Amino acid sequence: MAGMDADAYALLARIIREVRVAALGTLRQGAPLVSMVAFLPEADFGGFRLRVSRLAWHTQDMLADARVSLSIAEPDDGRADPQTLARVALRGDVVQLPGEGESFERLKADWLARFPESAVTFGLADFSFWRLVPRDARFVAGLGRTYNLSAESLRRAAI
Amino acid sequence: MAGMDADAYALLARIIREVRVAALGTLRQGAPLVSMVAFLPEADFGGFRLRVSRLAWHTQDMLADARVSLSIAEPDDGRADPQTLARVALRGDVVQLPGEGESFERLKADWLARFPESAVTFGLADFSFWRLVPRDARFVAGLGRTYNLSAESLRRAAI
Repeated sequence: MAGMDADAYALLARIIREVRVAALGTLRQGAPLVSMVAFLPEADFGGFRLRVSRLAWHTQDMLADARVSLSIAEPDDGRADPQTLARVALRGDVVQLPGEGESFERLKADWLARFPESAVTFGLADFSFWRLVPRDARFVAGLGRTYNLSAESLRRAAI
Repeated sequence: MAGMDADAYALLARIIREVRVAALGTLRQGAPLVSMVAFLPEADFGGFRLRVSRLAWHTQDMLADARVSLSIAEPDDGRADPQTLARVALRGDVVQLPGEGESFERLKADWLARFPESAVTFGLADFSFWRLVPRDARFVAGLGRTYNLSAESLRRAAI
């Protein structure tokens, strides 16, 4: 596996910043469950925020086991070979964030700027923010271009 | 959870038949890993075929533990609220399929009809077909419209 060049870092940053929904993998009774979630990366890619309902299976799963994976993929644009779509799979642990205070209010404003239609969830007691801290990432920039990244390398893409 | 009406069944069938790539959740050292894969459903939705390389992490994971989840989601079309995108998460076990014989040749023809650019993989010894047999499915038809489906109900969508 060769090192990543500037173009690959730029592509990684672009999909993390532009893609709005991702596939979240959680553990459910010891087996994988994948579900679609909206997400918001921190500016330096050191954390990825989710907003989920306690009624959702993935939230129950995260309450029971913090280990998750989040796959962020370019949406299929109908190209001849969909295997060339860029995607990155993060692996790490999640923590639930407090539902009040200054950092909550800042995050709420950022979240609403990206997902205005989710305003209704801020009146519902069962919704909360979670933060995924990536331990590592596997980035597929295209066919045959796969890179294993540390959390530090992932943050380099944000620069 | 109310029963699914004909429109919901039609939407489920449409995303299963039209979406080309999905998020595969596997177990890696006991933790979830999510990766993007191309897939091809059987006509009656009784099985979902993948074509993967033994060099890929998800294939190593499936060789070690057959339990997987596959999330098939409408691609983000830029709508105001991405949480309304339809998606279905299957859960079940995978088996590796033989790389020769009549059923292999039929599947190869079907696969190439959908993914012509993957022809090159048929000359590579490390690629093989796998079949996911769903045990159940969780279908989100849109905001607040979530249905738990048995494998039998999933097959009903194929009629």
